[in-house]
Amino acid sequence: MRENTFVLETTIEALLEEKKYTTLRDILITMNPADIALLFEELPEERLPVLFRLLPKEHAAETFVEMESDAQELLIKGFSDAELKEVVDELYVDDTVDIVEEMPANVVKRILRQTDPDKRKLINEMLKYPDDSAGSIMTTEYVSLRPQMTTEEAIKRIRRTGVDKETIYTCYVTEEDTGVLVGYLTIRSLLLADESELIKEIMDQNVIAVKTTDDKEEVAKTLAKYDFIAVPVVDTENRLVGIVTIDDAIDVMDEEATEDIEKMASMLPSDKPYLKLNVFEIWRNRIPWLLFLMLSATFTGIIITSFEEKLAAQVALTAFIPMLTGTGGNAGSQASVTVIRSLSLGDLKFGDLLSVVWKESRVAILCGIALAAANFGKILLVDMLIMQNTGVTMIVAAAVCITLALTVFIAKIVGCVLPMAAQKVGLDPAVMASPFISTIVDALSLLVYFGVATAIL
Amino acid sequence: MRENTFVLETTIEALLEEKKYTTLRDILITMNPADIALLFEELPEERLPVLFRLLPKEHAAETFVEMESDAQELLIKGFSDAELKEVVDELYVDDTVDIVEEMPANVVKRILRQTDPDKRKLINEMLKYPDDSAGSIMTTEYVSLRPQMTTEEAIKRIRRTGVDKETIYTCYVTEEDTGVLVGYLTIRSLLLADESELIKEIMDQNVIAVKTTDDKEEVAKTLAKYDFIAVPVVDTENRLVGIVTIDDAIDVMDEEATEDIEKMASMLPSDKPYLKLNVFEIWRNRIPWLLFLMLSATFTGIIITSFEEKLAAQVALTAFIPMLTGTGGNAGSQASVTVIRSLSLGDLKFGDLLSVVWKESRVAILCGIALAAANFGKILLVDMLIMQNTGVTMIVAAAVCITLALTVFIAKIVGCVLPMAAQKVGLDPAVMASPFISTIVDALSLLVYFGVATAIL
Repeated sequence: MRENTFVLETTIEALLEEKKYTTLRDILITMNPADIALLFEELPEERLPVLFRLLPKEHAAETFVEMESDAQELLIKGFSDAELKEVVDELYVDDTVDIVEEMPANVVKRILRQTDPDKRKLINEMLKYPDDSAGSIMTTEYVSLRPQMTTEEAIKRIRRTGVDKETIYTCYVTEEDTGVLVGYLTIRSLLLADESELIKEIMDQNVIAVKTTDDKEEVAKTLAKYDFIAVPVVDTENRLVGIVTIDDAIDVMDEEATEDIEKMASMLPSDKPYLKLNVFEIWRNRIPWLLFLMLSATFTGIIITSFEEKLAAQVALTAFIPMLTGTGGNAGSQASVTVIRSLSLGDLKFGDLLSVVWKESRVAILCGIALAAANFGKILLVDMLIMQNTGVTMIVAAAVCITLALTVFIAKIVGCVLPMAAQKVGLDPAVMASPFISTIVDALSLLVYFGVATAIL
Repeated sequence: MRENTFVLETTIEALLEEKKYTTLRDILITMNPADIALLFEELPEERLPVLFRLLPKEHAAETFVEMESDAQELLIKGFSDAELKEVVDELYVDDTVDIVEEMPANVVKRILRQTDPDKRKLINEMLKYPDDSAGSIMTTEYVSLRPQMTTEEAIKRIRRTGVDKETIYTCYVTEEDTGVLVGYLTIRSLLLADESELIKEIMDQNVIAVKTTDDKEEVAKTLAKYDFIAVPVVDTENRLVGIVTIDDAIDVMDEEATEDIEKMASMLPSDKPYLKLNVFEIWRNRIPWLLFLMLSATFTGIIITSFEEKLAAQVALTAFIPMLTGTGGNAGSQASVTVIRSLSLGDLKFGDLLSVVWKESRVAILCGIALAAANFGKILLVDMLIMQNTGVTMIVAAAVCITLALTVFIAKIVGCVLPMAAQKVGLDPAVMASPFISTIVDALSLLVYFGVATAIL
């Protein structure tokens, strides 16, 4: 895709150079707005206003929505008031809110001044919902029908008002006076029903809705679980106030997956793409955990220091420390990451703790035996036979392999228990991933190592 | 949700005990099939057949699709041929294919025997597409229109045939003789158009389609990128053969995210939920990488062994090894995970390599300075002042802090370069995550440590 964009980019630049605006327009019209926005990203900034003005009205608004906020800001600054109004008029309320949230105050003022009063009121209301709530991602443009309408009246209503609605595939049925949500139906059931049937006869009363204050991640999960294209959003009195559509839910799912992955790698989550973050922002997201984990390693230092004499006598023991702590860390993070992902997909709950521990114990024993055997073979072959390292005796080999098996066992148990415990006490399990587990397992594996070494050497 | 299910579960069991089947049916009818399937999971197996038979026909099929494959198998085994046919008749082709893929051969035979010949042929064709292809997740039930139809004729055709179609929200326009895909239109534009207009006048000719052989992950990305509800699938001659709907695409996105996360934690990806995997399967997914990484640690062992004399003379140096390798590993995996995720979201491409390295270098310098300073303070306070460790001199402290800063720098560069290089040569970047990076950084940080120590001690 990127390669194609590059070829296209060169063509577009050449056409701009020659001022072949009609040809340019013909090319742009065949493209999907998402692709036009991608193309604009690749072109020099000063080309944007000319190209954007070539787009037909509705195309222009759709492309505008898909663009990055810095490009949007650049365009808005170049717009006349009339041009700005033309774009704003075509935007859906939820998209306008998304744009307004990213703009500096003076640009926001200009946008709101060009918005008609009703829409402005809606935008201001939606800006009040918390960042993570269903309210913040919903759109207020949906089709609502009344229970007493006939199918024919309903279809007429959709034909009349549907052009402005973000999705008309699902229609919601609300009470005339109160606005309370009482049912829903799909365009499909409407089309397939008899013209004289009443909406209340064909609507489904078991409507699944979310509240404006619900977490947007839960809303995305609801859409995915029920295979919905949209889900209605109600206020505390069950009045319909908006809908969340599947395309916004997919964005939320992507964001949440990125956030989980960032947390698992010990970073503070960020909401901007990597290339848009400046060096200081990246540093700020990464340094807290690096510092915390580094200082936690003080314990491993203390453990080693207290066995200093033993190590001075048996220097060969030192050479195996990175292998032992590394393997322990890897074994533990396999368990923790599996559990974290299962928790986040809803496949596991705290009540499964015992069966998880029982399963991990058996996996750990199998892994421990295989690793200890392989390592014993490696010591015989590499350390004794090839390297002729006289410090590595059979007893040292035994100490290393016993420690390895025990460490893998402890690591798997710690790795599966900590994320589940974290969720139980209301912490984010994703924090209990590789780096955190590794730091704990480092200390534990050294304690085991020196314990075993003291016992058998 | 789980808690609610538990209360409901108790009620259902009590009603079953008292054989109150009408009440049970009334409760089940109000529920969404996805919730019924969840409920069935929680109930004892022997209850399933009775409850399932209480469901109305279409509800039954939808619930069946949402169930886990072992429960499906159990039900099929208890079905009479007539009952099986009733369920199979209601299933969409793509759902039937999904079910058939999970069943043992004798059950598959029974299912196919109860399927009508046309559908059986489609199922057999779809089973031939590779597991990861668009063909394997597409459905063959879609609405196709002809360019010469009027809007009115089109709506009539949908009313007549639409009941069986998985999605009628997007209609595809194909040539009468060849079946070649020439355009598409949404139900929305159809409803909003004039009755006498021809399909070819209102259809959009710039139709974005995927090929049967395209990777299903790319298909999911296409749907997400363009905010589509469905995307058409064409064969090599551009003939329409199916569609992929957004609900299946969301499942693919979830699967792919899980797979990425598993690979990042050095596991072979698995396609079953954790609790469904047996101990041996989990072991088989985890042991290859554990073994490989453990044996790679041979290098760190060799490095330490060759500095054995130095370490015996300066035992205090050993105590800092886990902290140095640990911090290096953490710093490296932050960079690698960020890059891997950006690559998978399409935010980065290989051409960005230099700007990524430049950015990471600056972040690494900031992180290195902060960590070295903090560590110097910690050594002064803990090791010298509190622990009174005479082995830790100012020169040792300097060696540790210089190594720390250099290690962080190397780790960040390795962490960002390796995933991008992996993608360039056609490997999966996700493999270049924490454990792999840590193993490399372990060896590099020890080389730096002993190099610095030799130079200044």
